[in-house]
Amino acid sequence: MDLTATTADLASAAADVARLLPTRVHDPVLAGLVLRAAGHGVELAGSDREHAVRLTRAATVHVDGAVVVPAKPLADTLRGLDDPQVRLVVEGSRLAVRTSAARFALPLLDLASHPDVPPHPPAVGSAPARALTSALVPVSGAASKDDALPVFTGVRVHGAGDRLELIATDRYRMAFASLPWVPTGALDALAPAVVLAEASRQPDRDAEVVVHADADRIALSWAGGSVSTALLAAPFPDDRARKLLEAVIDSTVLVEADVLAGAVRRAVPYAGPHGSVTLQVDDGELRVRGSDPQSGESEESVKATIDGNRVTKTFQARYLADALRAFSGRRVELRIQDGLRSTVLTSQAGEDGVELTYLVVPLRTVS
Amino acid sequence: MDLTATTADLASAAADVARLLPTRVHDPVLAGLVLRAAGHGVELAGSDREHAVRLTRAATVHVDGAVVVPAKPLADTLRGLDDPQVRLVVEGSRLAVRTSAARFALPLLDLASHPDVPPHPPAVGSAPARALTSALVPVSGAASKDDALPVFTGVRVHGAGDRLELIATDRYRMAFASLPWVPTGALDALAPAVVLAEASRQPDRDAEVVVHADADRIALSWAGGSVSTALLAAPFPDDRARKLLEAVIDSTVLVEADVLAGAVRRAVPYAGPHGSVTLQVDDGELRVRGSDPQSGESEESVKATIDGNRVTKTFQARYLADALRAFSGRRVELRIQDGLRSTVLTSQAGEDGVELTYLVVPLRTVS
Repeated sequence: MDLTATTADLASAAADVARLLPTRVHDPVLAGLVLRAAGHGVELAGSDREHAVRLTRAATVHVDGAVVVPAKPLADTLRGLDDPQVRLVVEGSRLAVRTSAARFALPLLDLASHPDVPPHPPAVGSAPARALTSALVPVSGAASKDDALPVFTGVRVHGAGDRLELIATDRYRMAFASLPWVPTGALDALAPAVVLAEASRQPDRDAEVVVHADADRIALSWAGGSVSTALLAAPFPDDRARKLLEAVIDSTVLVEADVLAGAVRRAVPYAGPHGSVTLQVDDGELRVRGSDPQSGESEESVKATIDGNRVTKTFQARYLADALRAFSGRRVELRIQDGLRSTVLTSQAGEDGVELTYLVVPLRTVS
Repeated sequence: MDLTATTADLASAAADVARLLPTRVHDPVLAGLVLRAAGHGVELAGSDREHAVRLTRAATVHVDGAVVVPAKPLADTLRGLDDPQVRLVVEGSRLAVRTSAARFALPLLDLASHPDVPPHPPAVGSAPARALTSALVPVSGAASKDDALPVFTGVRVHGAGDRLELIATDRYRMAFASLPWVPTGALDALAPAVVLAEASRQPDRDAEVVVHADADRIALSWAGGSVSTALLAAPFPDDRARKLLEAVIDSTVLVEADVLAGAVRRAVPYAGPHGSVTLQVDDGELRVRGSDPQSGESEESVKATIDGNRVTKTFQARYLADALRAFSGRRVELRIQDGLRSTVLTSQAGEDGVELTYLVVPLRTVS
């Protein structure tokens, strides 16, 4: 194998592959990056059997070939180069990364023992990358990071006619998004939130992303790349999740998401040992309050359009901040429900057709 | 106390005070920030007996007074405000931080039990802030972070005629700087590196900094503020340190510091389990090499002016990177000595009159 390519192109692709691979593995080949040069391009791929990624980049191929080398040092080396062009050439038992003044020689791992990228399951539909990212990023953020309960680390991906629905919850909050969808088959899967969010960031914003799925795996593919992952084998509590969306509204508050987020952020030093802030619905305003035995108390007024009762709810500040960030740049509607029922955040669908609903469970307070 | 001031002014001063105070203390008043309003200004001060800081900022004082409040929530609150002006007013047992839409109420701590900022020791000389910072930042970076050996966490500060000398070492490297100095007394002290570096960053670049010292404390003061700290009670190995500066040069290499730093950074993925890189002096170039059983090997050539023997030395990559960063933007001279004697890095004095010498001890290698 011998090729010359634009350093920045290869560096970003190698970083994307390396990020999806595990760093600590028993078998070093699973942390390997496969390079396949042929025609006018080079393919960068990785697979640890669970996740797999394959990206194609333009290259001037002098000699076709395929090798596998450790992914992290390759990605680190390409990222650090100042030269605009880089040459990758097999020299004996090494892949040499060459620039005008430097040579970095990575050991070749055993290509035959690399699991390779599995074939994609059948295509089940497609969506614009822009809409998919803007829906997946906030939804996957609502999933749990705790692997002890796998079901809550997943995003439920469900094709419903011409809409793709995404749901995730960590039990204290839930995010639900729907976006335009061109179905070509049935889709109902629970996939790891972290991998989906990472994958949705890789295609160009203007690309069309095809979703492939069967009973075991899901893959996203676009012109120039794909990411696939094994599904989570856990039943998502679908009925309970949907029931939460049926709101019994006590009070509706319309407010600029960023303004409220600023007030919540300023209340954080006063959020106390439980990190909680209180929202009090008042005439034409929402009062954001904090109270802490050491720091003292805070109160800030945020202009709002109110419809309904004057109610007071206490939330985990960081959940409220996460929810508001998902609506950044927009007016958000808070539908406050009675008692300990979730507060529902929504806004009008954006230009990309993404509808987002975010639920945050209030805290039990002593009053 | 009641005053109005520019939010950004107060926020930066409160952050500077909070940064020098401990966050975990038995007595909360030691993590307190003292505010003293009088005339046309407000003083922000903190002291945990060991370190002390006092900064003055312009303010419109409505009512004179002095209070002490928890430093961190005050600093965090001021930093988060969007309003350009802020009012600080005592309301009952609280200090209220007020903006157009918000009120943050911090509890008043007991001013009588605050240790207050101790009076400065006598002035012993002065130096321009710009030169002091550009000398103290790299020198303090060469000190150890390990409190178990206090002598190596300090910077030796020594007045030598019309030059101020600064030395620090963690035993594996040593930095020595001298800068223009107007003496008014004798100065020979060992002060905590972290505090000195932090203090030297606070005055305006154009300010003149007065150094105050006696047998127990050192203080830096300038128009608008001061920082003082207890000295380290340990004898600095002065003779040994100075002896290291007497170089027996084997080879001299003149090279652009940033170019060599780039090559060292690119060798890091190949620096192996000990994080080491090798410099090989060759004709008109310096070769930077790395070797690691997993990642492979690297070699990069850097153009250099060589005088002396072709020698090879291996260094801890991060020590070499730290040393080169101190000479960023300049040509640096590497004086390579025989055997395991330190390599000495120097460059011509800058416009600020700072002369810097950095020693890095090479690693023992099997050859």
